[in-house]
Amino acid sequence: MDSLKRSQIKSIVGSENGGAQFVGQRVLVGGWVKSFHVKPKKEVAVDSGGTDVAPRDLKCAEALFLKIPLLRCIVKILNLGGNPVGEKLEAVMQKKMEGIAYLRINDGSCVNHLQIVLDSDLYPLEQVTAIGTSVLLEGVIEQAQTEGKYIIELKVDKVLHVGPVNPIKYPLSKSRLSLEAIRVHPHFRARTTTVASVMRIRSILTYAVHKFFQENDFHHVTMPVITTTRSQDHQTAFHITQLLSSSNHEKTQVDGVTLEGIQAAIKEKTKRIEELKRSDSNKEAVFTAEQDLKAANELAQKLENEEKKMKKVVEVDYSKDYFGCEAHLSVDPGLHLESYACALGAVYLLGPVFQPVEQQLSKNLAEMWVVNAEQVFAELECAMTCAEDCLKSLSNSIMTGCPDDIKFLSTRFDNKCMNRIHAVLSEGPLPRVSYTEAVEALQKVSDYPFATKVEWGITLSEEHRRYLADELHKRPIIVYNYPKEVKPFYSRLNDDNKTVSAFDIILPKVGTVVCGIQKEERNYMISSRIKEVGLKEEQFDWYLDLRRHGTVKHAGFQINFDQLVMFLTGFGDIRDVVPFPRTKNEAKC
Amino acid sequence: MDSLKRSQIKSIVGSENGGAQFVGQRVLVGGWVKSFHVKPKKEVAVDSGGTDVAPRDLKCAEALFLKIPLLRCIVKILNLGGNPVGEKLEAVMQKKMEGIAYLRINDGSCVNHLQIVLDSDLYPLEQVTAIGTSVLLEGVIEQAQTEGKYIIELKVDKVLHVGPVNPIKYPLSKSRLSLEAIRVHPHFRARTTTVASVMRIRSILTYAVHKFFQENDFHHVTMPVITTTRSQDHQTAFHITQLLSSSNHEKTQVDGVTLEGIQAAIKEKTKRIEELKRSDSNKEAVFTAEQDLKAANELAQKLENEEKKMKKVVEVDYSKDYFGCEAHLSVDPGLHLESYACALGAVYLLGPVFQPVEQQLSKNLAEMWVVNAEQVFAELECAMTCAEDCLKSLSNSIMTGCPDDIKFLSTRFDNKCMNRIHAVLSEGPLPRVSYTEAVEALQKVSDYPFATKVEWGITLSEEHRRYLADELHKRPIIVYNYPKEVKPFYSRLNDDNKTVSAFDIILPKVGTVVCGIQKEERNYMISSRIKEVGLKEEQFDWYLDLRRHGTVKHAGFQINFDQLVMFLTGFGDIRDVVPFPRTKNEAKC
Repeated sequence: MDSLKRSQIKSIVGSENGGAQFVGQRVLVGGWVKSFHVKPKKEVAVDSGGTDVAPRDLKCAEALFLKIPLLRCIVKILNLGGNPVGEKLEAVMQKKMEGIAYLRINDGSCVNHLQIVLDSDLYPLEQVTAIGTSVLLEGVIEQAQTEGKYIIELKVDKVLHVGPVNPIKYPLSKSRLSLEAIRVHPHFRARTTTVASVMRIRSILTYAVHKFFQENDFHHVTMPVITTTRSQDHQTAFHITQLLSSSNHEKTQVDGVTLEGIQAAIKEKTKRIEELKRSDSNKEAVFTAEQDLKAANELAQKLENEEKKMKKVVEVDYSKDYFGCEAHLSVDPGLHLESYACALGAVYLLGPVFQPVEQQLSKNLAEMWVVNAEQVFAELECAMTCAEDCLKSLSNSIMTGCPDDIKFLSTRFDNKCMNRIHAVLSEGPLPRVSYTEAVEALQKVSDYPFATKVEWGITLSEEHRRYLADELHKRPIIVYNYPKEVKPFYSRLNDDNKTVSAFDIILPKVGTVVCGIQKEERNYMISSRIKEVGLKEEQFDWYLDLRRHGTVKHAGFQINFDQLVMFLTGFGDIRDVVPFPRTKNEAKC
Repeated sequence: MDSLKRSQIKSIVGSENGGAQFVGQRVLVGGWVKSFHVKPKKEVAVDSGGTDVAPRDLKCAEALFLKIPLLRCIVKILNLGGNPVGEKLEAVMQKKMEGIAYLRINDGSCVNHLQIVLDSDLYPLEQVTAIGTSVLLEGVIEQAQTEGKYIIELKVDKVLHVGPVNPIKYPLSKSRLSLEAIRVHPHFRARTTTVASVMRIRSILTYAVHKFFQENDFHHVTMPVITTTRSQDHQTAFHITQLLSSSNHEKTQVDGVTLEGIQAAIKEKTKRIEELKRSDSNKEAVFTAEQDLKAANELAQKLENEEKKMKKVVEVDYSKDYFGCEAHLSVDPGLHLESYACALGAVYLLGPVFQPVEQQLSKNLAEMWVVNAEQVFAELECAMTCAEDCLKSLSNSIMTGCPDDIKFLSTRFDNKCMNRIHAVLSEGPLPRVSYTEAVEALQKVSDYPFATKVEWGITLSEEHRRYLADELHKRPIIVYNYPKEVKPFYSRLNDDNKTVSAFDIILPKVGTVVCGIQKEERNYMISSRIKEVGLKEEQFDWYLDLRRHGTVKHAGFQINFDQLVMFLTGFGDIRDVVPFPRTKNEAKC
């Protein structure tokens, strides 16, 4: 009985000296093959520096297969077995792979791989030499025999599990795939080093969010995803309903036969014909069966056409819906969160928000995660400081919590990423400029042709924001006191009657990732603002209640969690930093 | 300029000696009034032990109003102003409240209140003596003058903010409300000591979940709320759609007038008539205006009837929907999580799940939060141990993280709650019994009349589970190896071909809160199980991919987070432990 506990690869190769202290230790490890090569035994025996020369006594094809195991697949795909050359190749392929396999395996615990040394005498190498193969192996850590990046390797003496891969069908068989190529396989993508790194960063960041707020005496509250309140009338939101379930019309039938029934019958009949043909039955029987199949196919076609013609229609009567009223997916949990802030003092959440986005698809998803925080007895200044502290704390957590992943990603994708993170962390508070100052600064710009003219009152567009952070200040900046028209009705009106107490933190490359607002706590004021923007007061009755009874000044902010991950990883498309991205016409799985 | 930073009440009265060390210190505090009483100044001067006798020189009504400020409201409600007695009472009410107010305020940071001493010379007491009033106050901490539970009190010398409350309209004006009475005001409920305690426990528990898994090298991954995969065919799920938005039919019109238009006109006309009457206009003008209003009302009625007759109808064509296909709210993120486990090794999530529940409404909501964890190279035993460790760690976090809240709730609602938590934490592993053993034990029970007869193969019902945990073992137990028919198709089939590797942790009082499953990793096996239960293999193509390529043994578990809070607080209705509960016909806000 084996009582050895599996070691995470991180615990072996994650240390500074690459795991040298483990030499001589017996370990049990599991993981997926990331890359591999096979050397003939003789070569290994005389190998001094890992030069990849094929030994003289191996036939050419065999040597090639050992060197480039993917060739096996190519041969299979091309189906060369039919001609003499192909037959020879296939014969080689079927042959047992002799030699020593060097497998680099990873178990997701860190960005680094562990090198495995596996002898063909111990296990058939052709079953493990494919990218994506899972293995559970036991052996002794040795100093690496070959020069290179690996300081240690595991000499396997027990193979406990192999989960094979068919390299022709496995979509990640190629070793360097583009982000686009990975994206179409959401259920496999975390097996790539890149996406795994992003996911570890997300995880560390999630924990850092909770740590920051809990240590600053905020209480975590979950806010409902299903809501009957819509924070802004012009925002579209997804409907949640059970009304559509009632649309199941009666199945189309012809003489009591349904489409599904006939399709099953067709399968059965096809199988029967094949059997008849195989068993050398008389031609007549085959002919009759084929005629029968033809008739079934015609009937199926007829039924299909009928089904297509029928429109499924459902009556929209929300009083008959599950909640007895119109319900949506929450676009913004902020309003609900205020009610809990006005009781618990300081609250935060990390949860999903939903919107059927149609624009800026590289930065927005239908389903995104956000951090919301709200504090009472707090004004704009307080929220700005808290948001800045939070941003710095989160950025720092990544640099200390997963430095290898950040390093890997910045080397591979965006080498300026680390600099941008350092700009957040650098000494001193972030520059704070009022909206008015920002507009004035942008109006003075002569060397950049903005698509939209800069005028006081406009919503600062992506290009304006980018110019402020990337060009003018060259670091993240806070812009505050926006015109009331560009911010939500619940933003607190300043004494100038023109601007509201709201701010954005604008990050280089990605733009606005943090939005903050001091909420309007004066009842008469918020009522008039609701009318001003054309909303119905009745809909916000419960929200106004918070101002009617024991109202307090309160302010908070929202961090777009997914966009923050974009900033920290340097990725340009939000779909690459989210496990199962949901965008228009794209909700696979 | 005031530079004093606001102190949390927890930091003052949260210490063991009740805050005695703060005597003499100047502090700034904010919060909401939880209870109060007012004493006449003379009484205060001679008061030695807080006896509540009214001083002789105060008139009876005045004294009463001072003692029981709610009387003011009662007088207002009864509208006694019309008669001589009422008039006298109102006169007293309008009179400035003279005396010293003792306010107990709370800011949500802890279960304890801070006692405030406020002199009527400093601020009109009638504006702060109402439950729910918000205050921001500065003063000096003094030793409490009266005997009682308060060791210190804050002698206020600056009132920085007051957010008044109208006690007639404020639903929490009464001091001891039932849970049912609180439940109907979801946006206010956290202002009650009870719900605030529950929310603090939830928050500590959330953090403890992340702490446990992060310290055990699990990676947090967010799984999609919107999904196109349904884990079990017979499970109902909410549809997510934008199709219903297209149902806005043309507004009903009569001669170009819409219902909304006419309703606005009616309001205007009514106002005009009142104005005419007030300004003593001639009767004719009033009469004409009234006739005009009558006509408008009739038209409105007509339009309304028309609208009612019209059915809003939409065509259900998912290809035209936002995602281009049928999409649902996730019932179970487990399947998606497996794909990330089979890449990152050990993963967890804390997120919402959704189901239109129709039964067991005191324990289930349409929107609930769950913890899911999944580990590779893990079998049932491993998942059971991890789940047990997790449960113990979470229970312990509450006992150490918010002992005052747990104590408060167990004193107020369920005094056996603490014992049950201790039973989880007590020495030694939880008892583990196989399903077969559990059935045999239940069959031997003669002193309890089960509604459903116990036979091998049945789903253990609530009463069976309760009996096992509450009566037979008198502590939480783990039941494992269930008949395959009662667990999902992806549970790993045991060698007996009858049972699957699945387990439940059953807690006293609440029942099953943790469910675990070792997943079927064998491709041929899971394919046949899918057929066996009548599901369509095509729908699980991506899920089967995980078995086709690099498959590994893996196991995990799910904790119903909300039900765990029920267990830890001793509450019997799940709606009382969730911020904004969502149940059938109930989605307020």
